[in-house]
Amino acid sequence: MEKMIYSFGGGKAEGNIKMKKKLGGKGAGLAEMTNIGVPVPPGFTISSEVCIHYDKNKSYPEGLEDEIRKSVEKLEEIMGEKFGGAKSPLLLSVRSGAAISMPGMMDTILNLGLNDKIVESLISETNNPRFAYDSYRRLIQMYGDVVMGMEHDNFEGIIQATKERKGVKNDSDLKWSDWKDIGEQSKKIIRDKTNEEFPQDPWKQLMGAISAVFESWDNKRAKEYRRIHSIPDDLGTAVNVQAMVFGNKGENCGTGVAFTRNPATGENVFYGEYLMDAQGEDVVAGIRTPGPISEKQAKESEVDMVTLEKRMPERYKQLEEVRHKLESHLKDMQDLEFTIENNKLWILQTRAGKRTAVAAIKVAVEMQKEGLINKEEALLRVTPDNIDQLLHPMIDPSATVEVIAKGLPASPGAASGKVVFNSDDAILEAESGNSVVLVRRVTSPEDVGGMHISEGILTSRGGMTSHAAVVARGMGKPCIVGCESLSVDYKKKQFTVGGKTVKEGDFITLDGTTGRVILGDVPRIEPKIAGEFEEFMGWADEIRRLGVRANADTYQDAKKARDFGAEGIGLARTEHMFFAEDRIPAMREMILSDTKEEREGALEKILPMQRSDFEGLFRAMDGYPVIIRLLDPPLHEFLPEGEEAIKELATSMGISVDKIHEKIKGLHEINPMLGLRGCRLGILFPEVTEMQSRAIFEAAVEMAKEGVKVIPKVMIPLAGYKGEVVVQKEIIQRVAEEVLSNAGVDIKYQIGTMIELPRAALTAGEIAEEAEFFSYGTNDLTQTTLGFSRDDVGKYIPDYIEKGILTADPFQTLDQDGVGELVEMGLKRGKQTRPDLEVGICGEHGGDPASIEFCHRIGLDYVSCSPFRVPVARLAAAQAVLEEKDRGME
Amino acid sequence: MEKMIYSFGGGKAEGNIKMKKKLGGKGAGLAEMTNIGVPVPPGFTISSEVCIHYDKNKSYPEGLEDEIRKSVEKLEEIMGEKFGGAKSPLLLSVRSGAAISMPGMMDTILNLGLNDKIVESLISETNNPRFAYDSYRRLIQMYGDVVMGMEHDNFEGIIQATKERKGVKNDSDLKWSDWKDIGEQSKKIIRDKTNEEFPQDPWKQLMGAISAVFESWDNKRAKEYRRIHSIPDDLGTAVNVQAMVFGNKGENCGTGVAFTRNPATGENVFYGEYLMDAQGEDVVAGIRTPGPISEKQAKESEVDMVTLEKRMPERYKQLEEVRHKLESHLKDMQDLEFTIENNKLWILQTRAGKRTAVAAIKVAVEMQKEGLINKEEALLRVTPDNIDQLLHPMIDPSATVEVIAKGLPASPGAASGKVVFNSDDAILEAESGNSVVLVRRVTSPEDVGGMHISEGILTSRGGMTSHAAVVARGMGKPCIVGCESLSVDYKKKQFTVGGKTVKEGDFITLDGTTGRVILGDVPRIEPKIAGEFEEFMGWADEIRRLGVRANADTYQDAKKARDFGAEGIGLARTEHMFFAEDRIPAMREMILSDTKEEREGALEKILPMQRSDFEGLFRAMDGYPVIIRLLDPPLHEFLPEGEEAIKELATSMGISVDKIHEKIKGLHEINPMLGLRGCRLGILFPEVTEMQSRAIFEAAVEMAKEGVKVIPKVMIPLAGYKGEVVVQKEIIQRVAEEVLSNAGVDIKYQIGTMIELPRAALTAGEIAEEAEFFSYGTNDLTQTTLGFSRDDVGKYIPDYIEKGILTADPFQTLDQDGVGELVEMGLKRGKQTRPDLEVGICGEHGGDPASIEFCHRIGLDYVSCSPFRVPVARLAAAQAVLEEKDRGME
Repeated sequence: MEKMIYSFGGGKAEGNIKMKKKLGGKGAGLAEMTNIGVPVPPGFTISSEVCIHYDKNKSYPEGLEDEIRKSVEKLEEIMGEKFGGAKSPLLLSVRSGAAISMPGMMDTILNLGLNDKIVESLISETNNPRFAYDSYRRLIQMYGDVVMGMEHDNFEGIIQATKERKGVKNDSDLKWSDWKDIGEQSKKIIRDKTNEEFPQDPWKQLMGAISAVFESWDNKRAKEYRRIHSIPDDLGTAVNVQAMVFGNKGENCGTGVAFTRNPATGENVFYGEYLMDAQGEDVVAGIRTPGPISEKQAKESEVDMVTLEKRMPERYKQLEEVRHKLESHLKDMQDLEFTIENNKLWILQTRAGKRTAVAAIKVAVEMQKEGLINKEEALLRVTPDNIDQLLHPMIDPSATVEVIAKGLPASPGAASGKVVFNSDDAILEAESGNSVVLVRRVTSPEDVGGMHISEGILTSRGGMTSHAAVVARGMGKPCIVGCESLSVDYKKKQFTVGGKTVKEGDFITLDGTTGRVILGDVPRIEPKIAGEFEEFMGWADEIRRLGVRANADTYQDAKKARDFGAEGIGLARTEHMFFAEDRIPAMREMILSDTKEEREGALEKILPMQRSDFEGLFRAMDGYPVIIRLLDPPLHEFLPEGEEAIKELATSMGISVDKIHEKIKGLHEINPMLGLRGCRLGILFPEVTEMQSRAIFEAAVEMAKEGVKVIPKVMIPLAGYKGEVVVQKEIIQRVAEEVLSNAGVDIKYQIGTMIELPRAALTAGEIAEEAEFFSYGTNDLTQTTLGFSRDDVGKYIPDYIEKGILTADPFQTLDQDGVGELVEMGLKRGKQTRPDLEVGICGEHGGDPASIEFCHRIGLDYVSCSPFRVPVARLAAAQAVLEEKDRGME
Repeated sequence: MEKMIYSFGGGKAEGNIKMKKKLGGKGAGLAEMTNIGVPVPPGFTISSEVCIHYDKNKSYPEGLEDEIRKSVEKLEEIMGEKFGGAKSPLLLSVRSGAAISMPGMMDTILNLGLNDKIVESLISETNNPRFAYDSYRRLIQMYGDVVMGMEHDNFEGIIQATKERKGVKNDSDLKWSDWKDIGEQSKKIIRDKTNEEFPQDPWKQLMGAISAVFESWDNKRAKEYRRIHSIPDDLGTAVNVQAMVFGNKGENCGTGVAFTRNPATGENVFYGEYLMDAQGEDVVAGIRTPGPISEKQAKESEVDMVTLEKRMPERYKQLEEVRHKLESHLKDMQDLEFTIENNKLWILQTRAGKRTAVAAIKVAVEMQKEGLINKEEALLRVTPDNIDQLLHPMIDPSATVEVIAKGLPASPGAASGKVVFNSDDAILEAESGNSVVLVRRVTSPEDVGGMHISEGILTSRGGMTSHAAVVARGMGKPCIVGCESLSVDYKKKQFTVGGKTVKEGDFITLDGTTGRVILGDVPRIEPKIAGEFEEFMGWADEIRRLGVRANADTYQDAKKARDFGAEGIGLARTEHMFFAEDRIPAMREMILSDTKEEREGALEKILPMQRSDFEGLFRAMDGYPVIIRLLDPPLHEFLPEGEEAIKELATSMGISVDKIHEKIKGLHEINPMLGLRGCRLGILFPEVTEMQSRAIFEAAVEMAKEGVKVIPKVMIPLAGYKGEVVVQKEIIQRVAEEVLSNAGVDIKYQIGTMIELPRAALTAGEIAEEAEFFSYGTNDLTQTTLGFSRDDVGKYIPDYIEKGILTADPFQTLDQDGVGELVEMGLKRGKQTRPDLEVGICGEHGGDPASIEFCHRIGLDYVSCSPFRVPVARLAAAQAVLEEKDRGME
């Protein structure tokens, strides 16, 4: 190990902001601030490499303790104080700080260096026994908790008992003698429980604290956090040892946190909170209400409290200078912690500030205009996933809510309405003008009508790509799925959860962004899409290579997709159109037909409906390609469930209930996902392919005559064999040529296939002999490659993630090692056969940033996703280019 | 084209037996026979290349007609006759003959050269007007049928009407004038229907006939045959033009067919049938009963008729000489056609004779002993699939049967019994001493008990690898599946088919070898396994590289597998053991448990049962490896279906019906194939893995103490991620070490995984870091790679084969392009990580010869199949080596 410790203080530091890996985010920030002249309490950072060494060997590298002693001596020099000294005692803090921020996940110990003797000299020096004894008991308790393994509750109990004994309510009502007493009791309880003494030797304290921080890297909480956030375990944490400064020494003291800009709106206003005569943790604890930092902030948020700007104008001015210095130096909005000790300003921490999506965009765009960053840097400042927030209403964060359950946040946004339990009730209620929320165990295509009319959808089962989730995202409707604690009773029309029963007609609110199910109607806010949004997305479009298309089945969705910037339709599911109430009878008639002739009769009724659907798509996508997938789902999905509905259908069609039962039985499949669906339908019933092709090309001709530029692409679903494409293509081509030549219109069109089976990817070279484009259906490809039924994975995926077998839900983020290899293999083999083969992706992964990065990297031509994910995809595609550049420069 | 026509006759031929591709099998045989001095009517063969040319261009290559004329002239010279001549007219036959035999699939025309005038000279020369007019009308009718596109029924109608008019019953009762008249009427009907005349010009006849044969290559029947037998379409057929010889000219004439050995038993006895004064087709037509050829044959088959040997001893002697000459020259049992014309013997055809499996083995072994062929050649003389026949009883071929339906022949052999419709009834009937046949729509694991006790199983749905098929083959029980014409009514306990109703208790017989469902009890024969069988299999073992193991779950099956030569168990399914009536309660208790503790209680009851099962397997496989797969199927398979059974279970377990319903609902999956099963179970419920591991190692210890050499291998099912193997391996290892060290016994064991998901094959390199062996579960790998649910494919696979999208059912024969690539990829990647990784296959494909050849070629270590397929696999593995050698020499 080259260098174990990096000092900072007295105007210069050995480290800098670029050394985050070694020094952690906090340590690197402290070093950088020191170097640019920001007042930082001096200290030193023990490198994360020491942690890695410690983690491996459970011992320190040779010479570390010597180095620490030398570093403390340096500190003593700067501060003119002595660690463990009877006079002017130097007190230290020890804090963890990893390269990637893990807030609250690891441990901190303050006030190191105090003991029974030194606390007395602190009193004589500060003349503030309350401060001294409070500081000492804090040390004892933190040390007992973090280093000696005590339960924190023990100490809380002592404080509580003391307050009761004294008959007071608040900590602030306790006297210095009480705090002294609490310190003594704390030492005693440590002795009783651990059989060890709280160490009086400051050096023992310091070394114990450092070890504890290193060990905290491997505690359960930290491991869990890393697992969830995909942070590698062998990164290690740095340890920051720093001279203590106190905001709670009296009148000229205070502490606060501040954002260099408003983190909610992004406005360029200094924004923060402060408390006089307080420690940092008191601001967070929320016992006293902190005041706003600046006058502008106070005015905007209509807070009638004294600002720091008013109370300490000099210190405020100094803080303002620090603000500008940090922003112009670090080129991002910062989140600061500061302390004022006896009228002297200290900055304890700086880091990039967390912000809402609105703020992220505003800050990025304004900083680009201010010349702080360029467009590429601006693009990297916004997390693509967050953009989704900009497109949906949100629950008013100031509202008080009663959360009754939590499920998977399947589709973002907030929705309130009366609870209904089936599509028919949803339609009835909605028609009487009520907002409704549809609650189901799971949804099936039969529910699509009800989903469409509902404000939001809640299911007790299913994962992030269950039917409910996919369809709701497609519709842009808030949706929560897999809310397993719900027990849904269709018969009684109610659900129960945690002892509560919610009946049909009761109001609930869904927060699809977080997965919270809330009782009652909760106020929502419509987020404003700031003017910078469009400009920002324009930059993304300038830089990205990947095309972005939308999955859309209706004119409305297609229009929305265009508004969101989609460059065509990557997937129009022709079956979604059949679930509407005025259409499903013809579809059912088709399915219930016994002969080709009967089927053709029913198809003839469907033809004009399909044609008008397709006209809408072409019209909305004027000048952009429209990929229309032929009928895909198993036929039984179109038939009614439940005796009631079957009876109704039998009556309306004039056939017997038995006949429908028989058909349903005949269509029943054990594994419908792997059954009679996709092009297998079109091959068994060529008349369906024929009708759909006719509808597509007749619509294209009609629109072309109206002057719309149509680019139709017909997609054959679920092919696994070249022969399947041959057989279907023959029909499509024949119909196309017939329709076009009859109309005397020349329209270029293509015929391609979805690649959603491993065999299709493996034999892509052969399939590309026939297919003119590929579109990866990565939902199904994930199901088959992994052997995971997306409808059934809810039972084990959480456990798999918990056990570390999976790092992410493969239906949300593409499994690059398995599915990804097949995607890449199919791409290469396909393009080898047909160099101009267009290859895209239209599964749910098309809207997932990590998966989009992969799609860019392997060289796909475009991604297609639901309209609401289009802006997300545009940004993610741009960032993929920037990341690639970045890697190229490494 | 080098040479279009190859002549033969007069003791020498331009072709030979090796030129099958050009001359077809028939032409090559005729040439070879001519060369070795066998009396063959002279003629010539038009090369199949002409057919290919004709097929492509719909015209002949230049100069063909000239060549034909020259060849006919050569014929005229040899025969001393003239084609189209008024005196000594030469008559010709035209027959197709492709390189691969397509019996009855293509067309033949005899007696070419006759016309209204020449028939008269034939009369004056033979003095036999009946013969002449009969020959002429045969020409007219064949020509009308084959060349002029008439329906054959037209001519049948004329003959029928004539017989009625004359009041006679048999063709032989018609007089010469009747035949003359029939000829005239035939010409007239041709004229009426086609507006063309039957050509009187012999040359026109000849050229028309040749064209018709070439065209017949592309007729529907021939195409269909090629599709079914995977014969390439661009092979083409040769055409044989040959001088006619007649066995029906009178007393010194006759015709017959003969096998050089008995095709049923393989015994070295000249075996055939003949008719005096008859044409070849009369033997086949079966109007007159033909007599046996040899005395030995007559004696053995107890036929009291005059033999050819008695009737024409000289000709018989000559035929015997031909027999020996052909066998010693062609080194295989031959199937001959001969004609004796005016006491002169002619051989019209020779080809390898079709034979039963028994005969195939006897002939091969005896010919090796006779020095005709070596062991390797002998091994190639038996089709592996046929070996299966040797292990099952067959329907007596002489019995008259009433076939009421036909399904897929899922498991060979014949079975008779009373029809039952569920497991309980099967058990009841069987317990009263009756044989039963279980009839179901489909079977589920619940039916295994009933299947076990039944003689045979018949299902109306499912494919060759449906549950019924797989389990029945495993049990070696005759089984027919996918018998779609059956309508099964469980309630009424009957099935209907083609208007017939078969009720519970009625007798049916299944022919699992052909798929025939037969009404009533039909006599069966137990085939004798000749002594040569064992010797023959020994030769296969000497040469094969692939190991052959068995899929067996019980001591009985394992013992049988050893008897059939299995070298270990490749797959023991631990769940099959749980369906027995005395065991399933504990299993159900385990599943219905709400807590880990309850589950462990139930598992404790199961432990001793599992242990004793495993003891049986180790005992049967003394010295050979036993691969035991941990629990694999979805849990709901273990729960009862139907209200009755649920009530019973509730009562017996003392819990509520609702609770069971709730559990069943909770376990219901939309796609169980892709759901909570395989190692996902063991990961969610580690206590199951723990119990099974304990049972395995306790059984191993127990057997080792008894002196059995145990080689346990624990197999983790359905892994897709290395992490899954890690998590399960940890449990297995821990339990193994504990059990072994407690017992103080040292047993080598391995932990491996099934590869049955595309992801597992793709990431095999990683998985092999943990797994010590791989076993490909190609059933599931086929399901996932192709997206075909084996339970649901029945709806489209037949159509796919019909349309040529599939060449074979991928569940029977491995899809080498898709699934095969994954198998090979996983093998390579696995061995790269772990060079000594053992890799085998345990799917149904492990018993399929074509798939075994593939397994050998890519370098798998072994195949594992059901006990009854073990001998098949041993032979197929040997043939794979020989084929490889053969390819190496090409």
